[in-house]
Amino acid sequence: MLGSTHGTLTTNSRHARVAACGRPPGPAVHVHGRSAAVEDVDVSGRPLHSTVPDLDRFFRPESVAVIGASDAEGRPNSGITRQLIAWAERVGARLHPVHPSRPAVFGLPCVPSVADLPEPVDLAVLLVRDPLPLVEELASAKVKFAVAFASGFAETGAEGAAAQARLSAAVRRGGLRLLGPNTNLNAFEEFREDLEGPAIALITQSGHQGRPVFTLQELGIRLSHWAPTGNEADLETADFISYFASRPEVGAIAMYVEGLKDGRSFLLAADRAARAKVPVVAVKVGRTETGARTAASHTGKLTGSDTVVDAAMRQFGVIRVDGLDELQDTAALLARARPPRAEGVVVYSISGGTGAHFSDLATAAGLPLPTLSPEKQAELHQWIPGDLSVANPVDNGGHPVGDWRGRKIIDAILADPSVGVLICPITGPFPPMSDKLAQDLVDAAEHTDKLVCVVWGSPVGTEPAYRTTLLGSSRVATFRTFANCITAVRAYLDHHRFTASYRSPFDDAPRTPSPSVRKAQALLRPGERLSEHAAKQLLRAYGIRVPREQLVTSAAAAVRAAGLVGYPVVMKASAPQLAHKTELGLVRLGLTSASQVRDTYRDLTDIARYEGVELDGVLVCQMVERGVEMVVGVTHDSLFGPTVTVGLGGVLVEVLRDTAVRVPPFGEDQARAMLTELRGRALLDGVRGMPPADVDALVEVVLRVQRMALELGDDLAELDVNPLMVLPRGQGAVALDALAVCR
Amino acid sequence: MLGSTHGTLTTNSRHARVAACGRPPGPAVHVHGRSAAVEDVDVSGRPLHSTVPDLDRFFRPESVAVIGASDAEGRPNSGITRQLIAWAERVGARLHPVHPSRPAVFGLPCVPSVADLPEPVDLAVLLVRDPLPLVEELASAKVKFAVAFASGFAETGAEGAAAQARLSAAVRRGGLRLLGPNTNLNAFEEFREDLEGPAIALITQSGHQGRPVFTLQELGIRLSHWAPTGNEADLETADFISYFASRPEVGAIAMYVEGLKDGRSFLLAADRAARAKVPVVAVKVGRTETGARTAASHTGKLTGSDTVVDAAMRQFGVIRVDGLDELQDTAALLARARPPRAEGVVVYSISGGTGAHFSDLATAAGLPLPTLSPEKQAELHQWIPGDLSVANPVDNGGHPVGDWRGRKIIDAILADPSVGVLICPITGPFPPMSDKLAQDLVDAAEHTDKLVCVVWGSPVGTEPAYRTTLLGSSRVATFRTFANCITAVRAYLDHHRFTASYRSPFDDAPRTPSPSVRKAQALLRPGERLSEHAAKQLLRAYGIRVPREQLVTSAAAAVRAAGLVGYPVVMKASAPQLAHKTELGLVRLGLTSASQVRDTYRDLTDIARYEGVELDGVLVCQMVERGVEMVVGVTHDSLFGPTVTVGLGGVLVEVLRDTAVRVPPFGEDQARAMLTELRGRALLDGVRGMPPADVDALVEVVLRVQRMALELGDDLAELDVNPLMVLPRGQGAVALDALAVCR
Repeated sequence: MLGSTHGTLTTNSRHARVAACGRPPGPAVHVHGRSAAVEDVDVSGRPLHSTVPDLDRFFRPESVAVIGASDAEGRPNSGITRQLIAWAERVGARLHPVHPSRPAVFGLPCVPSVADLPEPVDLAVLLVRDPLPLVEELASAKVKFAVAFASGFAETGAEGAAAQARLSAAVRRGGLRLLGPNTNLNAFEEFREDLEGPAIALITQSGHQGRPVFTLQELGIRLSHWAPTGNEADLETADFISYFASRPEVGAIAMYVEGLKDGRSFLLAADRAARAKVPVVAVKVGRTETGARTAASHTGKLTGSDTVVDAAMRQFGVIRVDGLDELQDTAALLARARPPRAEGVVVYSISGGTGAHFSDLATAAGLPLPTLSPEKQAELHQWIPGDLSVANPVDNGGHPVGDWRGRKIIDAILADPSVGVLICPITGPFPPMSDKLAQDLVDAAEHTDKLVCVVWGSPVGTEPAYRTTLLGSSRVATFRTFANCITAVRAYLDHHRFTASYRSPFDDAPRTPSPSVRKAQALLRPGERLSEHAAKQLLRAYGIRVPREQLVTSAAAAVRAAGLVGYPVVMKASAPQLAHKTELGLVRLGLTSASQVRDTYRDLTDIARYEGVELDGVLVCQMVERGVEMVVGVTHDSLFGPTVTVGLGGVLVEVLRDTAVRVPPFGEDQARAMLTELRGRALLDGVRGMPPADVDALVEVVLRVQRMALELGDDLAELDVNPLMVLPRGQGAVALDALAVCR
Repeated sequence: MLGSTHGTLTTNSRHARVAACGRPPGPAVHVHGRSAAVEDVDVSGRPLHSTVPDLDRFFRPESVAVIGASDAEGRPNSGITRQLIAWAERVGARLHPVHPSRPAVFGLPCVPSVADLPEPVDLAVLLVRDPLPLVEELASAKVKFAVAFASGFAETGAEGAAAQARLSAAVRRGGLRLLGPNTNLNAFEEFREDLEGPAIALITQSGHQGRPVFTLQELGIRLSHWAPTGNEADLETADFISYFASRPEVGAIAMYVEGLKDGRSFLLAADRAARAKVPVVAVKVGRTETGARTAASHTGKLTGSDTVVDAAMRQFGVIRVDGLDELQDTAALLARARPPRAEGVVVYSISGGTGAHFSDLATAAGLPLPTLSPEKQAELHQWIPGDLSVANPVDNGGHPVGDWRGRKIIDAILADPSVGVLICPITGPFPPMSDKLAQDLVDAAEHTDKLVCVVWGSPVGTEPAYRTTLLGSSRVATFRTFANCITAVRAYLDHHRFTASYRSPFDDAPRTPSPSVRKAQALLRPGERLSEHAAKQLLRAYGIRVPREQLVTSAAAAVRAAGLVGYPVVMKASAPQLAHKTELGLVRLGLTSASQVRDTYRDLTDIARYEGVELDGVLVCQMVERGVEMVVGVTHDSLFGPTVTVGLGGVLVEVLRDTAVRVPPFGEDQARAMLTELRGRALLDGVRGMPPADVDALVEVVLRVQRMALELGDDLAELDVNPLMVLPRGQGAVALDALAVCR
């Protein structure tokens, strides 16, 4: 909870936040230009690096203690103990049962307490109702890792959350690392050891929801780890992402996430995976309020604003999918496929209908389906009847599959330098054709480093061509539906494109405050809403252009101001708490003479008096030429802190909420990407005879607002530049109105 | 091709169109108030009824001739003949091989020609390269149905299309019905006869693409028919929809469609299915230009404008899905499930994570998940631990499924009167729990008329709980993914809601022209674009309000007109071919005095002279109060003829193309539904202090424009009312500008 820190930015409030994030406070953090070590945090006081916990001894311990071990008939702990003994045997760990009274458990000598363990153990599994009293003992015994299965913590409400906070604090004091509470045996399942190649590492906040990915092993997909993170009192999803991204055997990380413990630690972990080019595929519950609420009652975590989580994931290349089936298919493909040699996708099928249908869906999803060259088409027509189209999709009409031509066609497509991916959808199982086709594809895949995908569309799935031929190949990626194949291939191309040009925003994040911050802080009024004039001064402090304007308190001063500002002018009533100025008639445009200014001054003050609004004056502002109205703002997210939003202004933002959001820190590339996400972005290119807008200036404003978010974000409850008038190219952007609410 | 008929609406052009639709011209059609039989067509000359072809003898013939039968080793015709003999045996038909020289084929006596057939056959299968020369012979022999496998027709280009047109004409002359050409053996496959209950009937334009639905029989889903329509030279998709909708054994129609032969016949068939409450589920290729083009080269049919096809399907309750897997799952559910007893959906699972995830996706898709009553929750908590949420989703925590409580919980949920559907997602196969749970669900489903759905989320699919228990039940609908379950259940609830309140728009379609048509036709100028003034007169003829305005040709007349119209006025240059008036400065708003009007007249004529525009005058128009700008228009679709579009005006329509379209005829309900499809519809409710707009008046304009589309549509290439200013509620809507282009 960061929300309690009101007031200006102080060193203390930052310490409080850093500690609340579950990170040790580390060296003293000094900002505002004072000399100190500032290497580890950005200007907002948030960490710029995460440590990778060394979890080798958690997943592959040399010695394990089971506290509360039992072999009594019918006790749940007995079943668990038995599973742990089998697991320890598989991973080659010595297992020590701990029980106050039993001399032995399942034939293994038992010690009465942790203090009596014959050696310092790597891992202690706690089969006790309340793990808290044990923590100090574990720490004294130099236990590295503990797992707590007990439930009844944050998932049950405030009382449980308090107990969890105590457990969390004890663990931190003790210096050990804890998985759980409210977790389960998933980490200690039996993994297939006979599968080779890059593996999927799995992170879940629900055991049942992880089971399908785990079960992929039965289809020949290797799984290396399963981390069921439970309530994350200590070790969290981010820790496992960082660790798995560092493991050579991990080809992809698959996650089922209900909530994140801390926004920044998640970003840092995702950044680490992006740098390591390890794809992260995630199902994240919380698209709807129903989902968010239900998830919260499950593992007691906040799901966060879904829009913000979604943006944060995209910023760091995390691939978000909706279904567990997509999670399986996408993670399996990304784990095993080599980087693409080219981006072109060719669809090859034994049916013109299948090719048309698949291409339609693939194109709609944005997959690039290049037309094959005339030479390549001529080559393919050696084996495929001339009346069939082989431009892409390649329709072979069926028959060539049955003989030697089948393999020739596949090899010829794969040999095309524009082709990176060959997809063969086989919707109908028709053994005379589909069996041979499947075998040819498997054989061809052995002799190429390009990606070969097959969709086995039969609803049955027991056919030998599918189960033996296709699933027997680790080189062919096999899917059951068009949609999942398309989702996975798009993620594959996107992932490699993203990581190829990835530059960590943490490397460029500002560590020291800008000169603007001092000017800006003088304008802040904790807990208050600033007047329009003050809010604009805040923007000016950060180099964002505002109209020439003066705040005046008499009609005569208004006339003088208009002369200085230059006619025509706009006049607006100004007061700190004033909303809906336009609706109240407190904004007047296009005033062209001293007499109009004088009359308007009187009008505005009359209306304000009538409405009971206490003005701090009237703003006389420069009238700005027509441009594209945008909004840019800062909002505080419970999980990620200040976020930056940009959107189309006017009716578009009010009715369609056509906005894009990013979590700082982000670079210019992301600021530009925000604009491409807007549905109404064509407005910026110029419509109805308008010239193209000054997009560079808009991007610059977004980046300056980000700087404000970083430097003032925790002191600003809300900042809205609305409208930001973006003028024609080369002419800049002007903030015509602004709203700022201090925390 | 209807596009060649320019000119005013004549009896002849209608005949041409009716004939082009592949329908016999029928009785002479007279409109424009002349006395005649008008029962069969609407005012646009399009049919209001379709006949249901009696295809009983096609699917279950008593006698079959195979022209080109063979038993020569290695000939493709021999394999086909063998399959047809087996099929004839299964359906109890006498089969007569026809071959010019063979005395017998596979032991069956062979006749040399059609004329020599021993009896008039129901069905002739044509295994010949060119079926055309046979048609007359078949007609003489009173053959009812023919099937032509030969390819090389419309799918190959213009020459093939001409050959197909000749075939089509010959068949029509002969009075028989033809399936194909370019079709296959799918209609004569071996169907499982041991399955009971309502069946799926399948229509495909690609054999391979129909295979997965056919294969559903292996999972216990009954299939009654398969119609592979090929190029549809005669019998088309619509004929099979109509026929299947009339068959008692058909529970749902599943289709794979690449293109439609005729828009109106499709609508009439879909209408027939909607009246019969038979769901139609369709995959329709053509979301993208790539898909449309590829499909055209496959069966030689136009895919039509995808937006229009999509709207037409929704209007008549056809459920469009994207994937073949969705087609299978949705059709199977809709075929077999009884109508819902209530709309409420309850999600029940053995994992809080699964419940949260499924509910999240289901809610996002619009499924209604009611919160269970406190009494029901208390009842469930008898068997489910108190700390688990049972509000909906119901999380049982796992253990209660292992004993007698499992069934109690399911029965208690199903007994709730607010519940119509119970969905149990089982993502992880864990036999101690999932096997018992599956069996309980199957047992419970036998004792309820409510819908029970299960998602078996394991990627393996060979587990006995899935393959034997769940698939063995015809009462449980089993899915493999959350997404497909959600799609199917939503389609199920939508279908029953739609058909419950369905009223055929063909019953209310106008048959005789309105009094407006005579006035309107006098204004049309074939091949020309009308002036704004003339276009507005067209609208006035149909009772659509336009501003008071006068067309004047002198400054003095302009001043007189302004006095009559009432100040303030708007002045616009008027010319038939004038576009971009505003950009040229040829529109002036808010003129308040005679001198302004006089000056403006001179300005406008000066600009026009400078721009080389020949004016027919200057419009002096009433200035209309602020309202919501909309656009309403008519566009000509190649497949469906005139369509009606409504959208948000101004920048929204230009940048976001926020429009909705409908194919006439449609009723007021659909006109209102169009508005709910608009993303910016909130504008009509009033934003930024604006009052709610007169939606009733807007709906009325849409319906009047539909009337224009019906009565003038084939003579109008384009009609655009832009903007239509919708005033505050109770004040109507005014067409401020209009564009009309005659064909």
